[in-house]
Amino acid sequence: NRLRDHGVEIGVLQPGQFNALTDVPGVQVGHTTIIQGDDIRTGVTSILPHSGNIFQEKVPAAIYVGNGFGKLAGYTQVKELGNLETPIVLTNTLSVPTAMNAVIGYTLHQPENENVRSVNAVIGETNDGYLSDIRGRHVTEEHVLKAIKNAKSGPVTEGNVGAGTGTICFGFKGGIGTSSRVLPKKSGGYTVGVLVQTNFGGVLQVAGVEVGKKLGHYSNSFKYSPDGSCMMVVLTDAPLDSRNLERLAKRAMLGLSRTGGIASNGSGDYVIAVSTAKACRIPYQSDDPIQLHPTLRNGAMTPLFLATIEATEEAILNSLFAGETMIGRDGHKIEALPKGKVLEMLKEAGKTTP
Amino acid sequence: NRLRDHGVEIGVLQPGQFNALTDVPGVQVGHTTIIQGDDIRTGVTSILPHSGNIFQEKVPAAIYVGNGFGKLAGYTQVKELGNLETPIVLTNTLSVPTAMNAVIGYTLHQPENENVRSVNAVIGETNDGYLSDIRGRHVTEEHVLKAIKNAKSGPVTEGNVGAGTGTICFGFKGGIGTSSRVLPKKSGGYTVGVLVQTNFGGVLQVAGVEVGKKLGHYSNSFKYSPDGSCMMVVLTDAPLDSRNLERLAKRAMLGLSRTGGIASNGSGDYVIAVSTAKACRIPYQSDDPIQLHPTLRNGAMTPLFLATIEATEEAILNSLFAGETMIGRDGHKIEALPKGKVLEMLKEAGKTTP
Amino acid sequence: NRLRDHGVEIGVLQPGQFNALTDVPGVQVGHTTIIQGDDIRTGVTSILPHSGNIFQEKVPAAIYVGNGFGKLAGYTQVKELGNLETPIVLTNTLSVPTAMNAVIGYTLHQPENENVRSVNAVIGETNDGYLSDIRGRHVTEEHVLKAIKNAKSGPVTEGNVGAGTGTICFGFKGGIGTSSRVLPKKSGGYTVGVLVQTNFGGVLQVAGVEVGKKLGHYSNSFKYSPDGSCMMVVLTDAPLDSRNLERLAKRAMLGLSRTGGIASNGSGDYVIAVSTAKACRIPYQSDDPIQLHPTLRNGAMTPLFLATIEATEEAILNSLFAGETMIGRDGHKIEALPKGKVLEMLKEAGKTTP
Amino acid sequence: NRLRDHGVEIGVLQPGQFNALTDVPGVQVGHTTIIQGDDIRTGVTSILPHSGNIFQEKVPAAIYVGNGFGKLAGYTQVKELGNLETPIVLTNTLSVPTAMNAVIGYTLHQPENENVRSVNAVIGETNDGYLSDIRGRHVTEEHVLKAIKNAKSGPVTEGNVGAGTGTICFGFKGGIGTSSRVLPKKSGGYTVGVLVQTNFGGVLQVAGVEVGKKLGHYSNSFKYSPDGSCMMVVLTDAPLDSRNLERLAKRAMLGLSRTGGIASNGSGDYVIAVSTAKACRIPYQSDDPIQLHPTLRNGAMTPLFLATIEATEEAILNSLFAGETMIGRDGHKIEALPKGKVLEMLKEAGKTTP
Repeated sequence: NRLRDHGVEIGVLQPGQFNALTDVPGVQVGHTTIIQGDDIRTGVTSILPHSGNIFQEKVPAAIYVGNGFGKLAGYTQVKELGNLETPIVLTNTLSVPTAMNAVIGYTLHQPENENVRSVNAVIGETNDGYLSDIRGRHVTEEHVLKAIKNAKSGPVTEGNVGAGTGTICFGFKGGIGTSSRVLPKKSGGYTVGVLVQTNFGGVLQVAGVEVGKKLGHYSNSFKYSPDGSCMMVVLTDAPLDSRNLERLAKRAMLGLSRTGGIASNGSGDYVIAVSTAKACRIPYQSDDPIQLHPTLRNGAMTPLFLATIEATEEAILNSLFAGETMIGRDGHKIEALPKGKVLEMLKEAGKTTP
Repeated sequence: NRLRDHGVEIGVLQPGQFNALTDVPGVQVGHTTIIQGDDIRTGVTSILPHSGNIFQEKVPAAIYVGNGFGKLAGYTQVKELGNLETPIVLTNTLSVPTAMNAVIGYTLHQPENENVRSVNAVIGETNDGYLSDIRGRHVTEEHVLKAIKNAKSGPVTEGNVGAGTGTICFGFKGGIGTSSRVLPKKSGGYTVGVLVQTNFGGVLQVAGVEVGKKLGHYSNSFKYSPDGSCMMVVLTDAPLDSRNLERLAKRAMLGLSRTGGIASNGSGDYVIAVSTAKACRIPYQSDDPIQLHPTLRNGAMTPLFLATIEATEEAILNSLFAGETMIGRDGHKIEALPKGKVLEMLKEAGKTTP
Repeated sequence: NRLRDHGVEIGVLQPGQFNALTDVPGVQVGHTTIIQGDDIRTGVTSILPHSGNIFQEKVPAAIYVGNGFGKLAGYTQVKELGNLETPIVLTNTLSVPTAMNAVIGYTLHQPENENVRSVNAVIGETNDGYLSDIRGRHVTEEHVLKAIKNAKSGPVTEGNVGAGTGTICFGFKGGIGTSSRVLPKKSGGYTVGVLVQTNFGGVLQVAGVEVGKKLGHYSNSFKYSPDGSCMMVVLTDAPLDSRNLERLAKRAMLGLSRTGGIASNGSGDYVIAVSTAKACRIPYQSDDPIQLHPTLRNGAMTPLFLATIEATEEAILNSLFAGETMIGRDGHKIEALPKGKVLEMLKEAGKTTP
Repeated sequence: NRLRDHGVEIGVLQPGQFNALTDVPGVQVGHTTIIQGDDIRTGVTSILPHSGNIFQEKVPAAIYVGNGFGKLAGYTQVKELGNLETPIVLTNTLSVPTAMNAVIGYTLHQPENENVRSVNAVIGETNDGYLSDIRGRHVTEEHVLKAIKNAKSGPVTEGNVGAGTGTICFGFKGGIGTSSRVLPKKSGGYTVGVLVQTNFGGVLQVAGVEVGKKLGHYSNSFKYSPDGSCMMVVLTDAPLDSRNLERLAKRAMLGLSRTGGIASNGSGDYVIAVSTAKACRIPYQSDDPIQLHPTLRNGAMTPLFLATIEATEEAILNSLFAGETMIGRDGHKIEALPKGKVLEMLKEAGKTTP
């Protein structure tokens, strides 16, 4: 059961069919969950903005760095050129190079890419080293390729899965979460989908209810280890150029804030934003030096900003509601969010519909 | 009565004596409120990080641009050099040049500044053009100088005052608001003070309670005019360099988000952050090319981030609780926040202490 | 006589008809030169990207900060929204607010702008305080409006004129300079025009010849006062979005470098880049939330980069060749570049065509 | 024979003992050159800012992106935290992940790092795919570790070596180049060292002489493939914080410009700047939340800017003078710079001392 199934509504806009990143047409998500022995709790999640050859048909993109204590790969080229040319892959901090190698290999070996000699792999990460033997670097290129191959449309599995297998959020078990919003027709009718890999801290709020404070479940010293982080992927079918995608990406941090996130010093908080609009695709090669893309005017961005904030907030909460208690490395144990108690608090605060 | 007087606590940290920007030692705030005839509702607010000659004793500073649809003056030099050399002045959008001229004149004519030929005035603004005849540009240099001269320590007047005289927030009367947090000794015992000039929109939340949604008081279309904006000034006595001040400034946007702010397209949202620590002052001239400033390590920043978020959220709410119904230009009327109703909602949600 | 008239060619591309910013179709430049008494040597230069109402028909734009020790106004909004909505005005450091006031007034009072309440004036500056009584702030709004009204197409006056009246470059008399390049048809046939206001230092090179070193005319200590600066305005009729305009703007700094400029600590070096392509205009208001602009692909940018570098280098050199010896404030005297000697050096190095 | 051995002096400042990056005390450089069969021409170069455990004793650092069409790893964390925690490694574009894996492994296995679970490897790259089978990804982790182990002080081998084995510059054989400058005592006496991996284009100038134009050796269309790039590493013993290191890094692009570089669309031009000053080291862990580092005042930066520009220009030229004709993948052949002809031109232009 997801948060919304309990009658809790985040924000004022409506979600799409699956309340997931995959509500954006053509988008696919895949997971490889790696649970081995007592000490390995990690994985890979892939996001495909479209099902074609992404290198040959690039998509407008931007990455916003909320707090840059992280190892995300691919930032500077996306910033310079305004586009994305590979699937997005999420994994653990120390497996970023392996994921890059896999994505590079995947791209080099796609049909039509025989002469490609430069690939900008975009890989996000959070640090699951408390529950998993991260120093062992157990993710293989095969794991990554499997996550890409597995990618599919429709409902997205949340919680202890893929790149969220071993992550921790507000001291509870975090993981993968997702949500979406569909704008009203008069605002363009576009869909905004968000997927998050949650591994950060702060003072948890659920739908504005101060859960962390009430449970006394937060660090008094706020001297977090540098293990936190949150990866946020925002896709939309609205036709946007990279400048407005960067503005959109910035708003995901506002959604994170509403869950009580504080972007602590040790947190690597990144937002990757992509427009999947077909009319905005950027062919790798073209005889015409001029491209003619429709793009939304600045003045039409506000509803998309709101949608991003709401979907990010709900995606993070969904990751907490889906996370299950896990025991990992050296017997470390992280409890799931006490959903019963939280729902009780929500009910008392009038946040659940009867 | 401020929000906290009703038993509503924002966050987990404690405010300082005045719950105001002026809790940071040495800081002074001044207002000039300009209400003339039926159509002029504007003003000026000044913030002095210390009571000395700021040009001769510059302070480490950073400015973060949350959303750059605004006319704040002085950004690029602060970014390049990492310091502030004038009082900070807030006013209305079209009076920025006048405020600059006043601040330049003020600086040129201070003792010791006889040979100064370059001054970087930092002026923030929001657009009060709905309630005030902004096109008339009624702020004079004298108004600005008066706000600087008026500046004093102690409690800060909030609401329809100074640069907040004619501003609108979430469709209600906004204005000036302020708040502070004092870190526990073990986190350094530093004070963080925030002052805001609120003139923006979104879907109002008060202490997590969805006031805007419950009152049906928000724009369905989110096609805001480009008049929104929020200026946030964050001062602290923690010894920080400009890099960590910029990180601190970024967190104020997370505080804004918790009030329901969405950084709409038309909003100019800027955060000015300054360290007032005496040991960090930067003399204009020095025989020694080397300076030796204490600065906090990255790892010690997190409690300051939390303090900034909490104080910004509360400062914005304070501006709404202090704002009073105003009639201005062409008979335009903006109602104050219906505090009775809101407090009732807060009570129902268990947010007020009995 | 300009540099090129002596048979010195900068780079490999060809200039346009006037070898000036005004070779870009529709562009107009205006000057107000203010020489009064013994101590006032300053002025204003205006650049109009098109002759219509720029607020109603905005142009794609970007500003690159080479070194931000300067007071340029309008940066953050151009960065956020990607467009320019006023004429560009250049003047002296302490007259930026006056120029802003003039440009705001100009815009508010244009037909169709009766309801405009927010104007982002873009004003550049350098510090002419050695030759002029800059503290006296002698530029008036009338001076600025006159420069806008004076603006015209065709040849552009260089040297001690407009905003370049009192500026100093490499220790010689600088001022306004301009140049242009026209791309070959196969590269699109676009024109790139550059106008500079030169007031900076380093070790002068003319067409690669080390003039500063040979003349022994440079500071051994490089402890410049904070008075330097260079404003560079790059206009092109190539259809570019703001991201690629920012990339273009960055290249102007490479042109500055080739003259021996070093972007010293005290230099405020800014580049304003604008696309004047008619198909890229951005109407202030539109019923259609979607715009459809042609833009050049990333892969087509390189020739424009080269054109910008070459035209910037030549524009700076042109400012030096046009600058004339000037005596100003307190009898301060700045000599013109010793053109005879320099041409002799160029000849010896084989740089002049016989 | 290096350029300076022919009596050609670049700039006005003097180089250090080796005219190399290693003139900065404590700095070490190592190469692994990989030439195998007909098709493999690649390698690895490592730079160690000090000989201790860099993760435990981090160094202040900044990275400036001249043109971000590249895959440099580690950017965002350096930007956020202002420091470097690993050796810098340069290699080819598609071997970045392998180099990251090697550097991560190297760091994890250093004594004292037993509990480290997060490592920000900084890896630069250029694309040697014309001369080398880059798609084959022939660099191994062992190659990288060997380059780190090989690192030593003293003279640095230039040309077809390490990461420069297969690179191309201005259409001639490029590679590794290095140079240094020592400031006069009155400017602090600091050393600035630069090392470059040259793989970019433009219109070659040598000491201001238009070699590319005279030889007719440049692309008329400037439609370069996306294979170009230049990595620039700037180290100094001047005590600098990350803000002023970023300013220093920016100046390396000005040095690149003076060789005729244009930062073409396809070029990934990055500058990594580091202060090696012992008093500025940042311990990984510390009981004291406050650090006390000496740093240079803004006003003392200009001589370091000049030194960086000069050393970068000369390092690039040194790479060309050291590069030797190479035949590689599919029989592709790249000629060395015709040094005889170039020296003849330099002599004619009066650039060589008799």
